[in-house]
Amino acid sequence: MGSIKAVRGGVTAPQGYRAAAVEARIKHPRPDLAMLVSDVPAVAAGMFTTNRIQAAPVRLCRDRVRRGRAQAILVNSGCANACTGTRGWADACRMATMAARALDIREPDMLVCSTGTIGIPMPMDRVEAAIPKLVAGLNRKGGDAAAKAIMTTDTVDKQEALEFRVNGKTVRIGGMCKGAGMIEPNMATMLAFLTTDAAVAPGALKQALRDAVNRSFNRITVDGDQSTNDTILFLANGMAGNRVLKPGHPAWRLFCEAVQTICLRLACRLVKDGEGATRFVTVCVKGAASDADAQKATRAIANSLLVKTSWFGADPNWGRVIDAVGYSGARVEESKVDIRYDRLRAVRSGQKDARTPLSDLEKVLRQQSFTVEVDLHLGRGTDTVYTCDCSVEYIKINAAYMT
Amino acid sequence: MGSIKAVRGGVTAPQGYRAAAVEARIKHPRPDLAMLVSDVPAVAAGMFTTNRIQAAPVRLCRDRVRRGRAQAILVNSGCANACTGTRGWADACRMATMAARALDIREPDMLVCSTGTIGIPMPMDRVEAAIPKLVAGLNRKGGDAAAKAIMTTDTVDKQEALEFRVNGKTVRIGGMCKGAGMIEPNMATMLAFLTTDAAVAPGALKQALRDAVNRSFNRITVDGDQSTNDTILFLANGMAGNRVLKPGHPAWRLFCEAVQTICLRLACRLVKDGEGATRFVTVCVKGAASDADAQKATRAIANSLLVKTSWFGADPNWGRVIDAVGYSGARVEESKVDIRYDRLRAVRSGQKDARTPLSDLEKVLRQQSFTVEVDLHLGRGTDTVYTCDCSVEYIKINAAYMT
Repeated sequence: MGSIKAVRGGVTAPQGYRAAAVEARIKHPRPDLAMLVSDVPAVAAGMFTTNRIQAAPVRLCRDRVRRGRAQAILVNSGCANACTGTRGWADACRMATMAARALDIREPDMLVCSTGTIGIPMPMDRVEAAIPKLVAGLNRKGGDAAAKAIMTTDTVDKQEALEFRVNGKTVRIGGMCKGAGMIEPNMATMLAFLTTDAAVAPGALKQALRDAVNRSFNRITVDGDQSTNDTILFLANGMAGNRVLKPGHPAWRLFCEAVQTICLRLACRLVKDGEGATRFVTVCVKGAASDADAQKATRAIANSLLVKTSWFGADPNWGRVIDAVGYSGARVEESKVDIRYDRLRAVRSGQKDARTPLSDLEKVLRQQSFTVEVDLHLGRGTDTVYTCDCSVEYIKINAAYMT
Repeated sequence: MGSIKAVRGGVTAPQGYRAAAVEARIKHPRPDLAMLVSDVPAVAAGMFTTNRIQAAPVRLCRDRVRRGRAQAILVNSGCANACTGTRGWADACRMATMAARALDIREPDMLVCSTGTIGIPMPMDRVEAAIPKLVAGLNRKGGDAAAKAIMTTDTVDKQEALEFRVNGKTVRIGGMCKGAGMIEPNMATMLAFLTTDAAVAPGALKQALRDAVNRSFNRITVDGDQSTNDTILFLANGMAGNRVLKPGHPAWRLFCEAVQTICLRLACRLVKDGEGATRFVTVCVKGAASDADAQKATRAIANSLLVKTSWFGADPNWGRVIDAVGYSGARVEESKVDIRYDRLRAVRSGQKDARTPLSDLEKVLRQQSFTVEVDLHLGRGTDTVYTCDCSVEYIKINAAYMT
C-alpha cells in the first residue's frame, strides 16, 4: 500500500464529518437509527441494487445522488421500507424532510437508507420522535455508534479508515458497512457508506467508486440472493484542502488505490460475518477462455450449495467444484482442468492428483481461510470472488428470522 | 387420467423385462449394482445432463442410444465414474462388454449408468466379479431390488407403474429413479429408467420422452446444482403386441399422457426425498410477460436459499419471494404483484394483504406440502416447478458426505 496507512474512526475519521445513533425502537430495543453529516455540502456518488424490486429509499437516493451532491445520510435498521407502495415512498421522503429540517440543510442534500425486513411500513412516529435526539448527539467520534446502529443480523460492526498524503495535505477515507445474508455480487444486500475529506471532482468520484465496487463488493457472495435495498454512498467534502482530484492529477491513482483498499477490506468483513459462516474462501478461476467465462465459473462455485456445505465439513470435495464449473456455462475441457486448495494441487488434468495426500488437502480445508483455484488452461480469462461456507447455523438463522 | 391406472412392479411391471441387484461393495456393503434387461431388443430413447463435465457412462449411453435401440442397462451406485479420464472411459466400456457377454446380447445394445462420488475410479475387479451373479438373479419381479440398488443418499426407493389399453391390448409403463441432492432442472442429478411393453416408433418414443421430461424432471429443483451423471433412459420392447404407436395413432395422446404421468410422479418423489427436505413446495408463476420470464422467476424462487430456509422455518416470508422475483431477470412491476400461499393471498398489488391474518398464512406453511403462487399481472406467461425446503439436515448430510 506504500504511503496509505490504516487509522481509527470509521466514517468520522476524515475531517468535517459527524455521526450519531439512537434507539428509535423500529423493531428491536437497540440503537437502530444513525445519521452521518458533512459540515459542508459534499460531492456525492452512489451505486444501487440491480434488483427490479427496489425499496423506496433506494429510489430516493438514486434520484438525489444523480446531482453529484449531498450533505447528510439518515439510515435505519429493522425495516427495509421495501414493498411498501406509495406509503413507503411518502415515508422515505418524509424522513428526508424531517432530517433536513432538523439539520438545517437543503432538502435535496439529504439521503435516506433502510435495511431490515421487507414488506413492513416504517413506524414513522418513532422515527420522527428520534430525529431531534439523533441530531443533538452528532459528534466527531460518532462513526462507531453509527456502524453499530446499521447492523441487522451482523454479529460485528464493520469499519475501516485510511490516511495518505495529497499535495502535502493529509487526506482520509472512512467507511462502514452492514450485511450478512442476502449477499451476492451486483451490490449485495448491504449498505456501505464512505466518506473522505479529499476534494474530488464529481465525475471522478463516481468513477473511483465504480471501479472499487467492481473489485470488491461486486465480488462477494454469501448466499446468492440479491436484496431490494443495496446501496453504497460516497461523500467527498474537500475539507482536506487538496487540489481537486481527478484523472490526470498526480495523486489520482493513489486515491483510487485507497478507495479500492477500503472497499475490499469492508467487503471481506461482510463475507467473514456471513450468516453462520465458519470459513472465508477466496475462489479464483484462471486460464478461462474469457474474463466473462471466468466470472461464470467463480460465481457457480461460490454459490453452489453443495460446494459451500462441503467447505463447512472441511471436505476437499473437488468433484463438486468441477461439477459447478461444468454447469456454469463457461467453456471447459475436462482433461485440462487443474484445481488447487491454497498451494496444494488436488486435481491435475481433470483427475485426482495422486501425489497429493487427501490428509494434506483436509488440513487446508480445516483452516478458517483458504483459496480454491481452478485453472481451465484455455485462455487468459481470470476472476476472483470472496465467499464463505454454508453452515447449519445459516439455516437456523434464516428459518427463524421472522416475516 | 381416465383409463390409466396404477399397478405394482416398477420397471418390471411391463411384459418382457427382468431385473436384479447384487452387493458388489463398490463403496458400501449394500446392494449397489443393478441390471435391467428386455427379453428382446427394444426401441430406446435417452436424455442426458447438460453439464459440460460429463461422466464416462453418460457419454457412452448418449452415443449408443442415438441408434434408437437397446436391450439392457447396467447401473451402479457408490461411484459416479466422473472425472476419471481415459481410465473411466475404458471402465465404462468394459462394464458394457462384460455385461453384454454375460447376457449374450449384442454389445451396442448394452447401456451403462453410474451414480455416486465424483473423481474415484470404478473398482472394476469387484464389478467384474459381481456381474455373473447379477445375471443369474434376473427375474420378472426384480424391479424392486433394482430400484433400491441405485439409491445413494435417497432415503426411499422410487418406483411407479401404470397400465392402460391400446388396440384392445393391455400396455404397461414402469419406472424407477434415484436422486436426492444435486437436483436442478435440466436433468437434475438423477438417474431414471422407464420401460414399456408398448410398440412405439423410435422417433416417437424420443418425442414422448422429451415432452414428459420437460414437464416433470426438468421442473424440479432441490439445491440448484446440476450433476455430471444425469441420465434418463426409456426402453419400449413392443411385447404388448399393439400396433406401433406414433403421432396420428388414436392412442398416441393416451400414451403420452401416461408417460407424462409416470415422469411427474417419479420427479415429485425425487423432490419429496430431497436431502433433508421437510416440505414439498409447488412454485407457480403466472401472468408473466412470457413463459421464459415465468421460468426465470420460478427458478429464482425455488433456488433461493433464503426462501428455502424460510419454508423450513414455516415462515410465510413473502418479502424473500418478491425479492427473488426482482433479481430473477423477469419483467416485474412491483405494484402489480400478487402472492398466494395455497388459496390465501399474502400480497396484493405488491404489498401485504391486510385482510389475511399472518396466523392463517403460517398455518399453510406448517403443512408438509403447499403451493406458492406469484401472479405478475403482466401477460400470459406461466411456469411451475416442484421443490423443497432447505433444512439443517441438508447441511449436515452434505458436510458429511465424503470426497
